[in-house]
Amino acid sequence: MSGDRDRSVELIENAVGRQVPTVVNGQQARPFGGVAEPPPGGAKHGPPIRSAAHYPADGDKRVPDLKTALERCGLKDGMTISTHHHLRNGDQVAVAALQAAADLGVQDLMWFPSASFPCHEPVIDLMERGVVHHIEGSMNGPLGAYCSHGRMSGLGVLRSHGGRWQAIQDGEVHIDVAVIAAPTADAFGNADGSHGPSACGSLGFALADSIYADHVIVVTDHLVPFPCIPWQIQGNNVDCVVEVDSIGDPGKIVSGTTVVTRSPDRLLIAEYVARFLRDAGIMRDGFSFQAGAGGIALAFVGYIRQMMIDAGVKARFVRGGSTSYLVDLLDAGLTDYILDGQTFDLAGVRSIGEDPRHVATSPFTSYNYHGKGNFASMVDAVVLGATEVDLNFNANVVTHSDGMLLHGIGGWQNCLFSGCTILAVPSFRDRIPVIVDEVTTVTGPGELVDVIVTERGIAVNPLRTDLLEALKGSDLPIRPIQEIKAEVETLVGGPPARPRLGDEPVAVIKWVDGTVIDTVWRVPEKSEAQ
Amino acid sequence: MSGDRDRSVELIENAVGRQVPTVVNGQQARPFGGVAEPPPGGAKHGPPIRSAAHYPADGDKRVPDLKTALERCGLKDGMTISTHHHLRNGDQVAVAALQAAADLGVQDLMWFPSASFPCHEPVIDLMERGVVHHIEGSMNGPLGAYCSHGRMSGLGVLRSHGGRWQAIQDGEVHIDVAVIAAPTADAFGNADGSHGPSACGSLGFALADSIYADHVIVVTDHLVPFPCIPWQIQGNNVDCVVEVDSIGDPGKIVSGTTVVTRSPDRLLIAEYVARFLRDAGIMRDGFSFQAGAGGIALAFVGYIRQMMIDAGVKARFVRGGSTSYLVDLLDAGLTDYILDGQTFDLAGVRSIGEDPRHVATSPFTSYNYHGKGNFASMVDAVVLGATEVDLNFNANVVTHSDGMLLHGIGGWQNCLFSGCTILAVPSFRDRIPVIVDEVTTVTGPGELVDVIVTERGIAVNPLRTDLLEALKGSDLPIRPIQEIKAEVETLVGGPPARPRLGDEPVAVIKWVDGTVIDTVWRVPEKSEAQ
Repeated sequence: MSGDRDRSVELIENAVGRQVPTVVNGQQARPFGGVAEPPPGGAKHGPPIRSAAHYPADGDKRVPDLKTALERCGLKDGMTISTHHHLRNGDQVAVAALQAAADLGVQDLMWFPSASFPCHEPVIDLMERGVVHHIEGSMNGPLGAYCSHGRMSGLGVLRSHGGRWQAIQDGEVHIDVAVIAAPTADAFGNADGSHGPSACGSLGFALADSIYADHVIVVTDHLVPFPCIPWQIQGNNVDCVVEVDSIGDPGKIVSGTTVVTRSPDRLLIAEYVARFLRDAGIMRDGFSFQAGAGGIALAFVGYIRQMMIDAGVKARFVRGGSTSYLVDLLDAGLTDYILDGQTFDLAGVRSIGEDPRHVATSPFTSYNYHGKGNFASMVDAVVLGATEVDLNFNANVVTHSDGMLLHGIGGWQNCLFSGCTILAVPSFRDRIPVIVDEVTTVTGPGELVDVIVTERGIAVNPLRTDLLEALKGSDLPIRPIQEIKAEVETLVGGPPARPRLGDEPVAVIKWVDGTVIDTVWRVPEKSEAQ
Repeated sequence: MSGDRDRSVELIENAVGRQVPTVVNGQQARPFGGVAEPPPGGAKHGPPIRSAAHYPADGDKRVPDLKTALERCGLKDGMTISTHHHLRNGDQVAVAALQAAADLGVQDLMWFPSASFPCHEPVIDLMERGVVHHIEGSMNGPLGAYCSHGRMSGLGVLRSHGGRWQAIQDGEVHIDVAVIAAPTADAFGNADGSHGPSACGSLGFALADSIYADHVIVVTDHLVPFPCIPWQIQGNNVDCVVEVDSIGDPGKIVSGTTVVTRSPDRLLIAEYVARFLRDAGIMRDGFSFQAGAGGIALAFVGYIRQMMIDAGVKARFVRGGSTSYLVDLLDAGLTDYILDGQTFDLAGVRSIGEDPRHVATSPFTSYNYHGKGNFASMVDAVVLGATEVDLNFNANVVTHSDGMLLHGIGGWQNCLFSGCTILAVPSFRDRIPVIVDEVTTVTGPGELVDVIVTERGIAVNPLRTDLLEALKGSDLPIRPIQEIKAEVETLVGGPPARPRLGDEPVAVIKWVDGTVIDTVWRVPEKSEAQ
């Protein structure tokens, strides 16, 4: 089936000057029009009305296996199957579900994971066989490479966590069958991620799927008598429950422990970030921040923790991905709450399962741009990464400078709405500068990026005169972004080579409102003639 | 405005032989067609898509007062305002909201409370003035009398808790503005009922309103810094937050304590119910039951508690309305969980606020018939009341034998789906027999009522041969329902007089699937000529 995509697409220039397709996988696509969108209009998707008359009165929705469940849910050619990625690289359910679909002889599915990982590499074979037509969702590793080389039948569509909720809620993506891997569940379909042998913490990424899909299958290796308490997925939305021996490899679902960076440069970046928040007056009683599980972010938490203790300051809430570093803040009384979107290590899983101050959130509460606000804009500061950033602070998180699509967006776009968005990045990687004239793929518009922190200095977006004012008198190395860029280029021998790209779109990057902010272009395979 | 209703309605006979209107308040109405409904078809209601771009980035949605909030929400003539009844007879928010609407000069509103109480009597004046056109929702006390006498402009529509969710979800009732009284909230609109000076426990009855209404206003007297944890209402669905001095009278919101019956007859009924569950083998390890806050139900909990201890039996869950009696079971380790729909006394409020095993539920999880099942059918036994029951076990909970509409349905209809539905009723009240030839208003079809327990004996529905079989050998007074009826009539001097009713519908009773199961007819006022 591979290669049947119509390669002649109509392109249009969007508000950040990028050429984007007007049609994506047969559906009209709107070009990114700027951050301040007009009222979207329209109504949220209404899933089919069901009747309790057609579900077992005793609540027992178990069926023998995934194949039976998919049959009961009426799986047919061309439908969309969704999965979530809370089991990360340990997930065994998504591939099992798609293989069960293959066993049923179904073709041309759209697979709609909240993200995919190297463990999902068998899906390449299913794409080659035409079982899966294309993937909409983050593609980390081999699937990203497959897509980058233009071997997927449809266009890849990358969305942020909030953008995925928005697309489902707004009816842009219709899920026929959602398959939800659940570390704990009851036979009615109530499910949760905080307990069981494959515990992964929050199941928030699967929540939209459970609410809006036509059919919902819960797959668990830890069935408990009704009621499964707490429940994050409600059995009232679930059609079938499948019990399996194992939903995943616990060692790959969560890290035993998450590890702070040891690189002196990166430690310096982390320290700069913490000092920046302190000196700018953002670190004050009742403040909030979000930091993920990367090495720099973890080191940052260590620095800010000490500064909070020294200043006698307590946070109102911190946001994860949660790790032992955030749990330590909670246990030490340095924050009232952890608002957790996903749970990265064993300390996080233990805490979310035991401590009512460690609260599971969903992309609806945290990120969905088509709600009546969301939590992301209420966070005082967020510490993020990037693969590239340009002189206008536009940033890239999905492609490398060689054009290869190797990363997902995660909550990155959504977090840009925080009070102070900080990209904490080394000034170069593998002798390739991070600050460039033009990013390969615009993932976030520069007007939302406030600060770039590198080991060579800190660049503040000139739009943020308030931050520049607040930092007067600080001994932090605040420098124009152009100056840092020039210094790095001198050091590594010039700006990075522009990637050699084809002129065929292989994927699009959606903005948080469902518009297309950039296109990912085909990267020729090494074997191809020039 | 009162009296402008078109009194010439077309009637049709439904599956329980009752004449019901084909049009209710200008909308087509389907007659009840039996318990086993065909697939309903159609899609759930999709509320308008909003954008975070049009809500404050700092999450502060406070406006000065209810009037401003209603203006912001675009309140206009003919719209629908909803409120919830978790503050019961202590509620001060619903009337304040409707009066604020009156101050704005708005007319012809539909008021859509989850239930109304005597404290809402001022709404009669608003109906006389044309501000409120009619009420859809339970009308306890004076509003019920007003409706019964045909003084309301539109038809009253009574729905069960689950039926109200179904009607909102299915788009049968479109809520323009939901006003949610919240014992605790943050400025973003996250709200909860378990803490604060006006704590009322669960806020589950307001959940559908928050999800499906066009606009949502949260009114609170206890504003906390974001995030309000736990939240049952999500700020992402909320437009405005209004801070007031008090949302209600705490003494009337929850009882200090709920009180068991002292009547020897009613104590005997309660004991019979408990013995029935024991002797029928329903009271076994891991079983579940639901009992409310009435005097008989509370006494029943005392009896079953002792029988559970004696037999060494533990429940998996019990369902409330929760009271100190259910909390005692939880504290004593006699149940794993309380699944709570509303919280009736201070012990219940304390427990739901502190104990993670005491779980707030909503009509969606518990009762909505248009979901993929619900909890009600998974409960092994439920103990309910009734005003009347007939020889076919059809039962009435909304009208008295004089035809007056004085009670709401609550979760009563929804609970009929339990494994064993027991109506625990005195055989007569004020010398009026409870078992009658024909109930004034069919609220639930007899095929779902399994057992009638009176102080004069226990009648088992002949359809439940399994229960009759299980009870063989029990020394409980199992008797044919006809026999109990005849005995009571002998005692009180014959069957009750049939009420003198007009031929004008004043309200309809909806079944759990949205069909009309019966009509409430106008009761002439005493002052009216014969």
